Amino acid sequence: MYPDPSSITRVASLGAGPIGGGWTAHFLARGYDVTAYIHDMAERDALMDIVNTGWISLTALGLAEGASLDRLTITDDIEKAVEDAGFIQESAPERLDIKQGLYETLGRIVPADVVIASSTSGMTMTDIQATCATPERTVIGHPFNPPYLLPLVEIIGGKKTDPAAVQWANDFYAHAGKAPLVMKKEIPGFVATRLQEALWREALHMVANGEATPEDIDNALINGPAPRMAVQGQCMAFHVACGAGGMATNLDQFGPALKWPWTRLEAPELTQELRDRMVNGCNEIAGDRHFTDMAVDRDRKIVAILNALRDSA
Amino acid sequence: MYPDPSSITRVASLGAGPIGGGWTAHFLARGYDVTAYIHDMAERDALMDIVNTGWISLTALGLAEGASLDRLTITDDIEKAVEDAGFIQESAPERLDIKQGLYETLGRIVPADVVIASSTSGMTMTDIQATCATPERTVIGHPFNPPYLLPLVEIIGGKKTDPAAVQWANDFYAHAGKAPLVMKKEIPGFVATRLQEALWREALHMVANGEATPEDIDNALINGPAPRMAVQGQCMAFHVACGAGGMATNLDQFGPALKWPWTRLEAPELTQELRDRMVNGCNEIAGDRHFTDMAVDRDRKIVAILNALRDSA
Repeated sequence: MYPDPSSITRVASLGAGPIGGGWTAHFLARGYDVTAYIHDMAERDALMDIVNTGWISLTALGLAEGASLDRLTITDDIEKAVEDAGFIQESAPERLDIKQGLYETLGRIVPADVVIASSTSGMTMTDIQATCATPERTVIGHPFNPPYLLPLVEIIGGKKTDPAAVQWANDFYAHAGKAPLVMKKEIPGFVATRLQEALWREALHMVANGEATPEDIDNALINGPAPRMAVQGQCMAFHVACGAGGMATNLDQFGPALKWPWTRLEAPELTQELRDRMVNGCNEIAGDRHFTDMAVDRDRKIVAILNALRDSA
Repeated sequence: MYPDPSSITRVASLGAGPIGGGWTAHFLARGYDVTAYIHDMAERDALMDIVNTGWISLTALGLAEGASLDRLTITDDIEKAVEDAGFIQESAPERLDIKQGLYETLGRIVPADVVIASSTSGMTMTDIQATCATPERTVIGHPFNPPYLLPLVEIIGGKKTDPAAVQWANDFYAHAGKAPLVMKKEIPGFVATRLQEALWREALHMVANGEATPEDIDNALINGPAPRMAVQGQCMAFHVACGAGGMATNLDQFGPALKWPWTRLEAPELTQELRDRMVNGCNEIAGDRHFTDMAVDRDRKIVAILNALRDSA
């Protein structure tokens, strides 16, 4: 039903804010024709500021063959914006009434085999697609700020979404140079924002209690967990740090520490099932790599990050 | 009372595990003479494995002038280990009875103007120094794993610690190429581990609820928040992302979202005092830099990280 993701040549990017503008820059850099829809032509300069800012970084990362800012069309005519688009990225304001009205329109004027993805960070597609006549192809494709730089896109459909549209969005984003992550369940905050929010709330608690300043928080992250997290995430960071025993050693040895008052976040019960999921998950990621090789690989990449940060200081 | 931190030439590193070995490698790389104390000479090879592994990364980061593995002495004689040492980094096993016994001995045999720092992640210096005859110069200097790579050292004294020893440790670590962070209060988990633990517990909740796999968690972090966090931390990430309004806009606009069920961690009350601390803290870090310049700087460094990770893949 849906076209081959690699056959798409034109993308419509709806929205003139940092997210919409960031997506526009990203798709241009990957060599697509892009039509940007803005609510009012007065927003044109603001949009171009964002696109031009993003372009500096995208150029430094390497543009796709044929990528050009000349392949951008800007319009305030929604029908013209979606014409010939093989994919639509919607980054309208975060108000449910605005999103629902827009999806009602898009549902009528966009062919049913064109996937429409919303950048929303705070709503569910079940709510957004409520009054859309063709909701099967609507999904959430939630980027991470700045969207022209960070590869993550979290994908999930609503109750009326066709699973094939979710799969298509995954394949299309991957083809378009993103790192898609299909969510298992429609949960508020998706995966990355929930993790970030947990950390953020703990940071606010510490500042509220006079235990740390914002500068302390940032210095602790920058010089501690963050460079390693950029290389390994957190599960594999613990898995590799525990040597041959891996995540099993981590949970069996440090499991009791979960009940210690480190952070104000209550820990889940460390059931056998949770333990197995964590251990099996890490073992699957590791595959047949020896933990020593993974540690050496981690170190090499952290060195690359630290040297890159020093050289770009 | 304490010597000039820049006058120190010999460091004693106590412990043969990954933390003790990591410290040994770090101090050697910064050009110090290092005496490593190990409990049993049979641990010598294990220690050297850690030191040699760390040395690869430390060489890639750049060794200090005169730095050499030849400047390492290994001994199982504690009196010989601390002889002539101008600073002692203790990374003994994480058992209070072992630490207390060790500090009792060190308190007798080490001159009182030599600062002794513990790598402990789970104990307070108030407990560790309880039976030490000269506790004034004992502090916690908690590194982040791997300690030869990540710059963070969290510093805090116990009830009997002289504040001047805390200040000295801060100055010495900074001189020795680390990024010291003096804690405001003696709280379990310090700053970085508390933040990491909040994130980790949320990750465990998600895996327990079937909302994400360990692979999803790591992919979300690696492709989303982590590269930005390595560049900006989290406070300044929000500050800069909110444009001219900065952290004030973030808290005033997204404050209500703190009460949303993003993560299982209960948010603190967003009082005027907390708001002011966050806003003032970010403004102080920003100084007179314009938010656009900070965003460009952020992007340049994230590009450097992404390119470094790609090139080292």
